[in-house]
Amino acid sequence: MSNGSIFVWEALGTAILILLGAGVVANVVLKKSAGNNGGWLLINFGWGLAVFAGASVAAPSGAHLNPAVTLGLAVADKVEWGAVPFYVAGQMLGAFLGAVLAWLTYKVQFDTHDDPRNTRGIFCTAPTVLAPGWNLVTEIIGTFVLVAWVLLSPGAKAAQDGVPQFGNSALGYAGVAFVVIAIGASLGGPTGYAINPARDLAPRIAYAILPIRDKGSAEWGYSWVPVIGPLVGGLLAALLYLALPV
Amino acid sequence: MSNGSIFVWEALGTAILILLGAGVVANVVLKKSAGNNGGWLLINFGWGLAVFAGASVAAPSGAHLNPAVTLGLAVADKVEWGAVPFYVAGQMLGAFLGAVLAWLTYKVQFDTHDDPRNTRGIFCTAPTVLAPGWNLVTEIIGTFVLVAWVLLSPGAKAAQDGVPQFGNSALGYAGVAFVVIAIGASLGGPTGYAINPARDLAPRIAYAILPIRDKGSAEWGYSWVPVIGPLVGGLLAALLYLALPV
Amino acid sequence: MSNGSIFVWEALGTAILILLGAGVVANVVLKKSAGNNGGWLLINFGWGLAVFAGASVAAPSGAHLNPAVTLGLAVADKVEWGAVPFYVAGQMLGAFLGAVLAWLTYKVQFDTHDDPRNTRGIFCTAPTVLAPGWNLVTEIIGTFVLVAWVLLSPGAKAAQDGVPQFGNSALGYAGVAFVVIAIGASLGGPTGYAINPARDLAPRIAYAILPIRDKGSAEWGYSWVPVIGPLVGGLLAALLYLALPV
Amino acid sequence: MSNGSIFVWEALGTAILILLGAGVVANVVLKKSAGNNGGWLLINFGWGLAVFAGASVAAPSGAHLNPAVTLGLAVADKVEWGAVPFYVAGQMLGAFLGAVLAWLTYKVQFDTHDDPRNTRGIFCTAPTVLAPGWNLVTEIIGTFVLVAWVLLSPGAKAAQDGVPQFGNSALGYAGVAFVVIAIGASLGGPTGYAINPARDLAPRIAYAILPIRDKGSAEWGYSWVPVIGPLVGGLLAALLYLALPV
Repeated sequence: MSNGSIFVWEALGTAILILLGAGVVANVVLKKSAGNNGGWLLINFGWGLAVFAGASVAAPSGAHLNPAVTLGLAVADKVEWGAVPFYVAGQMLGAFLGAVLAWLTYKVQFDTHDDPRNTRGIFCTAPTVLAPGWNLVTEIIGTFVLVAWVLLSPGAKAAQDGVPQFGNSALGYAGVAFVVIAIGASLGGPTGYAINPARDLAPRIAYAILPIRDKGSAEWGYSWVPVIGPLVGGLLAALLYLALPV
Repeated sequence: MSNGSIFVWEALGTAILILLGAGVVANVVLKKSAGNNGGWLLINFGWGLAVFAGASVAAPSGAHLNPAVTLGLAVADKVEWGAVPFYVAGQMLGAFLGAVLAWLTYKVQFDTHDDPRNTRGIFCTAPTVLAPGWNLVTEIIGTFVLVAWVLLSPGAKAAQDGVPQFGNSALGYAGVAFVVIAIGASLGGPTGYAINPARDLAPRIAYAILPIRDKGSAEWGYSWVPVIGPLVGGLLAALLYLALPV
Repeated sequence: MSNGSIFVWEALGTAILILLGAGVVANVVLKKSAGNNGGWLLINFGWGLAVFAGASVAAPSGAHLNPAVTLGLAVADKVEWGAVPFYVAGQMLGAFLGAVLAWLTYKVQFDTHDDPRNTRGIFCTAPTVLAPGWNLVTEIIGTFVLVAWVLLSPGAKAAQDGVPQFGNSALGYAGVAFVVIAIGASLGGPTGYAINPARDLAPRIAYAILPIRDKGSAEWGYSWVPVIGPLVGGLLAALLYLALPV
Repeated sequence: MSNGSIFVWEALGTAILILLGAGVVANVVLKKSAGNNGGWLLINFGWGLAVFAGASVAAPSGAHLNPAVTLGLAVADKVEWGAVPFYVAGQMLGAFLGAVLAWLTYKVQFDTHDDPRNTRGIFCTAPTVLAPGWNLVTEIIGTFVLVAWVLLSPGAKAAQDGVPQFGNSALGYAGVAFVVIAIGASLGGPTGYAINPARDLAPRIAYAILPIRDKGSAEWGYSWVPVIGPLVGGLLAALLYLALPV
C-alpha cells in the first residue's frame, strides 16, 4: 500500500475513533446531554466500540490508529520504518478532525453547559491524582497490555500476516475493542487511559484552538505523560514479543 | 430478489427493530416498568441489539432497515435505484407496525404512567436543546458514521458483495449492532440519535394516530430534522466512499 | 440423536440456563449479595449470557432449552414431533435442578435476607401491573421475537440445518444471547420476560417445594400466563416462518 | 509444547488476567479513581474481558490460566499430568506478577485512599456473609459451570482438539469471556467468584508481602475456600464430562 493511502486510511479511522471517543465523554460530562452522568462503563463501551468502528473502516492500512501501536509493530518488524511517519501523520490529523467533529456534534451542549471550564476532559486525559511519575507508570502498563495483545493474540497476528479471515469479518476488530474496554474498565481509573499519543495530543491541540465557550486551560504541563507513557508501553510490548518463543 | 420480497423482508426486519427500540425506551421511561430509570447504556444496548435482531432476520434483502442506508448504498451503486421505493416503503410500514407492537407490549404501563404527556420520546426523538441547525449537524454526523461503516468495513462490504461468510453467520450483524451502540453512546446525547428517517417518522405517525392515554403533541415542527439529517449523512458517506481508493 | 440423549442434553443446558438466570436475580434482589441493587442491564446480561452458556453446552441436541422454541421448530418441521416430549421433559427437569442449584449458591443470602417474602421473583416472573390479558400479549410478543429469530436468522437456520460452522464455533450461540438481552432490555419491563414455559413453571414448582426461609406465595394464579403466552408466541413465529418466502 | 513454554505462556496470560481483574476492582473500590463506585456490572465486564485478553495472549499453551481448568482438563485426559505442575506454577507466578502490576498502576490511588484497611478485596475474594461450608458450595458451583463449559461447548472442545478455526480467530476467547461475565453476574454475589485458586491465592500472597499503605489482614483463615472450592468444582465438571455421551 502506498504511503499516501496509509495516510488517508489512518486519518479516516482515527477521526472516527476520536469522534466517537470524545463524543461519549461529552455525552457523560455535558449537563444538557441525554447521557449525562451515565457512568464509567458507558465511557468504556463508548471508547471500546469507537475503536471497533474506526478500526473496521481503516482495515486497508492495518488499522493502527495509534502511534504506540505503529511503534510496536515497527520494532517487531511488522511495519516498515519508512511508513511510520505516514501512519503517525494520518493519526494526528484524524484525531484532530475527530475532535472538531465531536465538538460540532455537541455544539449546543457546550454552549449551554453550566461548568464550561471542565470541558477539557472531553478532549484529552487528566490524572485523578497528579503524580507524573506514577501517572506515567499507569500509561505504560495500560499501553503495554494493548500492544502486547495486538502482537500476541492469534487473530491479531493473523491479521498482521495478511490472513484473510480476520480482514474479511465484520467482527474482526471486535477483539481489540474488547481489550480496549478491558483496559478502560481496569486500568483507566488513575489517568483516564490515553494509551495513544495521537488520541491525547491532537484533541488537546483542538481544545486549545477551537472557540469553545469559556474554556479552561489545555494543561500542557501534563501533556507529555500521555505521549511518552504509551510510546514506552508499546516499545516494551514489542521487546517482549521479540523475546518470546512465538 | 423481487421487489415484493424486498418489501416483505424490510418490513419484517424494521418492525423487529422498532418494536425492540421503542420497547427499551418504554421500559426506561414508563414508571411501572421493571427497567424504569435504567440508564443511557441500557437504551444504547437495547437499540443496538434491536438492530442485530432485525437485521439478522432481514438478511435476505440486505437488511438496510433504514432509508439513509438504502440511499447511501444506491448512490454507491450497490443497490438499484428501482428497488429503492420498495426498500423505503417496507421500512416505513415495518417501523409503523413495530411502534404499534411496542405500544401493545407496554399497554398497561402506558395506562398507569404518571406523566402521560411525556411518552412521545418512546416513539420518536427529540433534542435535549432545541436548535434545529445544530440538531441537524448532529444527525448528519451520526448517520455519516453508520453509513460509512456499512460501506467501508470489510465484513459489511463482503456482505454487500454477496460473500457468504457474512450471511451465513449468526453473528454477521453483530458488527453493525456494535456500531449503533457506539453511535448511541457517543453521538446520541444531543438529539437521541434517530440516524434513520423511518425509525423516527413512522413511529411519530403511530404516536399521532394511536389511542394512547392522555398523550401529548407529536411535535411535527421538529420532525423534519431526523428525516433530512440522516439522508444527508448517508449521502455524504456514499460520496466519501466513491472518493476513496477502496 | 436418541431421545434419551436429547433428554440429557436439554436437561443439562436448561439447568445451566436457570442456575445462571435465577442466580443473577438472586444477586440483585438479596440484600447481602455483592450485586444487590445492580440494575436492569445486569439482569439482562445475566439472563442473556445464561442462554449463551447453557446453549453452548447443549449444542448436541440443538440447544432449545425452551418448550416454545421446541414447539416452533416442530411446527416449522425442523424437529420430529416424537422427540418433543423428550425435549420438554429435559427442559422441565433441568429448569428445576437449576433453580435448586441457584438456591444452594445463595443459601446464606436467602437465610439473611431482610424481606424473605419477596424472594419468589428469583425463581419465576411476575407482572409489574397485574392484567393477565395484556401480560399475555407481552409474553406472546417477546417470545414471537425470540422464535422468529431462531427460525429466520441465517446462522440459526444454518445450525438447524446442520451446517457445521455454527456448531463448531465457541461464539455460535452468542447471537441468540444478544437477542435474549435485547428482549429483556426492550420487552421485559411489563412481565419480567419469561418467554419460556420451562423457565417459569419449573422454578415456580421449586420455590413451592424448597425449604426457603419465610417464603411467600408461589402465585399460582398467574402461573398460566408465562406458560401459555410463550407457547402462543412460538406458534405464531412458526406460522410466520411457513408463510414467508424463505 | 515444552513444559518451559507452557510455564512462560501461562505466566504471561495469567499476569494479564490478574492485572486487569484486580485493576477493575481497584478502579471501583479506590476513592480517587475515575471508576469509583462503578457497580457490579463494571466489575463483571472487567473480569470477563480480562479473561479474554489474557487467554488470547496465552493461546499457545491452551490458555488455562486457572488450576481448576488444568485439573479438569487433566482428569478429562486432555492434558498430560506431567505438564500440570508447569501450568500451575506459571499460573501462580503470573497471578502474583499481575497483582503487583495492578498495585503499581493504582499506586497513587492506594496512597490516597481514605479507608486503606479495606483494600484486600482488590487482591482476593471475601464472602459477603462468612459461612465457609456454604461459601465452598458457591465456589464449587461457579467453577463447575466454567469448567463444564470449557469441556463441553463445541468451540472450546474444538480448541482443545487443535481445530485451527478457534485458535485463528481474534474472537476465539470471547466465548469464555462471556461465560465468566455470566458467572460473575449470576453466581458471584455470595463470595466474589474466585473460581480459580491462582486468581485468589497468589494475589493474597502479594497483598501480604507488598508495602501497601496501612493495609489490613490478608484473612488467611478464609483462604482455603477459594482454593479448594474451585478445584472440587473443576473435578466434578470433568467427572460429568467423562460420564456424558459426548
